[in-house]
Amino acid sequence: MSNQIQTSPAEIAVTGAFVRQTNRFSAAFGDSPDELPVEQGRYRLIWSAACPWAHRAVIVRRLLGLEEAISLGTVDPLRPALPHTDWAFTLDEDGKDPVLGIRYLSEAYLAADPGYTGRPTVPAVVEIATGKVVQNDYFKLTNHLETAWAPLHKQDAPDLYPLHLRAEIDELNGQIFHDVNNGVYKAGFARSQEAYEAAYHTLFERLNELEERLSISRYLFGDQLTDSDVRLYTTLARFDIAYYTAFRANRQRLADYRHLWAYARDLYQTPGFGDTTDFDAIKRHYHLSVLLAAEGSNPYRILPKGPDLSQWNTPHGRHS
Amino acid sequence: MSNQIQTSPAEIAVTGAFVRQTNRFSAAFGDSPDELPVEQGRYRLIWSAACPWAHRAVIVRRLLGLEEAISLGTVDPLRPALPHTDWAFTLDEDGKDPVLGIRYLSEAYLAADPGYTGRPTVPAVVEIATGKVVQNDYFKLTNHLETAWAPLHKQDAPDLYPLHLRAEIDELNGQIFHDVNNGVYKAGFARSQEAYEAAYHTLFERLNELEERLSISRYLFGDQLTDSDVRLYTTLARFDIAYYTAFRANRQRLADYRHLWAYARDLYQTPGFGDTTDFDAIKRHYHLSVLLAAEGSNPYRILPKGPDLSQWNTPHGRHS
Repeated sequence: MSNQIQTSPAEIAVTGAFVRQTNRFSAAFGDSPDELPVEQGRYRLIWSAACPWAHRAVIVRRLLGLEEAISLGTVDPLRPALPHTDWAFTLDEDGKDPVLGIRYLSEAYLAADPGYTGRPTVPAVVEIATGKVVQNDYFKLTNHLETAWAPLHKQDAPDLYPLHLRAEIDELNGQIFHDVNNGVYKAGFARSQEAYEAAYHTLFERLNELEERLSISRYLFGDQLTDSDVRLYTTLARFDIAYYTAFRANRQRLADYRHLWAYARDLYQTPGFGDTTDFDAIKRHYHLSVLLAAEGSNPYRILPKGPDLSQWNTPHGRHS
Repeated sequence: MSNQIQTSPAEIAVTGAFVRQTNRFSAAFGDSPDELPVEQGRYRLIWSAACPWAHRAVIVRRLLGLEEAISLGTVDPLRPALPHTDWAFTLDEDGKDPVLGIRYLSEAYLAADPGYTGRPTVPAVVEIATGKVVQNDYFKLTNHLETAWAPLHKQDAPDLYPLHLRAEIDELNGQIFHDVNNGVYKAGFARSQEAYEAAYHTLFERLNELEERLSISRYLFGDQLTDSDVRLYTTLARFDIAYYTAFRANRQRLADYRHLWAYARDLYQTPGFGDTTDFDAIKRHYHLSVLLAAEGSNPYRILPKGPDLSQWNTPHGRHS
């Protein structure tokens, strides 16, 4: 999930550590009465190209061929002026989502719960007929798409969450979440040197471990692309361009890891990954919106020009 | 020169570009009545280990063996609280320079000129008997040490400013100053995207040219170490640890340049260079003092942990 423009006071612990808010709408998809129906054309997925939590759902949607089943709405990577903590449809004509007809994502959250006081976050699954957010579980959403939505997958869709590996995938996903995906945020949003250094240490220890793991197999689980790869990828794609500088995750760059860097390029060059990766949106979001709001810095709104991104398309040699 | 804590309004052009203030005390050293006498023990050089402009004078002082002739006072890399734009002797016992007896560098500037309104900057050459700043010409100071101070050089001191190369050295020094030494400041202190991008472009074009030049010779002028190498070094030593992140000079790191990086390590491992390079002071100054004051950012005073500096001591292979 991400409304990354600012942390709310409730998300900062007394130690200065960043503690991410929980999800409001976490119902599963399925056939039972308390589940959300799986139905072609019923929902619209709202994402920001900048947001790693939303990006993973968009990658999985494409890998599984769910583009026809679930339509996609895109909010602007730059946020409205503070104190607004919203996402806006300013990329669309007249500043409105063409299907939902709303200007701000908060409208769909308030339609679902008039008392909603959290940050409006992406990914958000909105029921088109009612205009209500019905699901914003950034952690489980890809798993729902991979399982409950199987009847609508394309032919020969990959099995990203195979039954015999689920326990292992879940365990690895937990590590990737705490130490990497959210680890960079813990470093970037820390308000004490100690909290920052703890996050930094944990992040790079985990990356070292993953580097080791990827030295002997193409993907995190051997030759099989899984949900875990999608989750790791969305952070790696933002690493050198955003986290290294904006979040001070700067012990080393992704490009300095031999195996992680080749692995990231391998994924980037796979349909579903690179074609949903918008480096420009990522750069503008983190350097202009997030930093500005989270730290009060960068008042002159200078956009960093580097790093050089052309190497993402160089050969990676991961086939063999 | 550098009182780097903040730019004064006079140093920002209407285009948003940073225009460095000029020097107040630029008399030469020598024998004529309008020159400053060259005399053992007469002056004290004040520097901050963080400041690249002062660092070059300290390197040259050591290369030429002028430690006995000119004593050295060191100000704190962290500045007093704003709006103070001063350098303080808080590293010394009781917070006073043990020779000059002053707490702030501004005292020596005001002793020399009670109407001084510029930023008090380092390097500053202070006449010990009067307590007055007599020289703060960061651009020419090393050349004075290399020429007028020759009678006090150690035996076998290198000739850093040989007569037959002076015109060429001066020309190259001008390019290094405008595009590299001050170029990183132009990028970091820019207050418009255009001014930043112009500085960024010029900086990396010049570094590419120097990379080329250093691919065929050990130093900037063949096998002879010169004043130009000192000037380039002080910016290179601060590049990955400060300018890449704090000043957004991030097209690539020094460590990504094959020849410049080996060249920088070669110098670092030469007495006079590495032993006067205080990475900790540099990091704290740029990330805590400069950024805080120049941009109002980093309110939580988080100190970046990276990059890894251990590679500065790896073999460089520049001997052959």
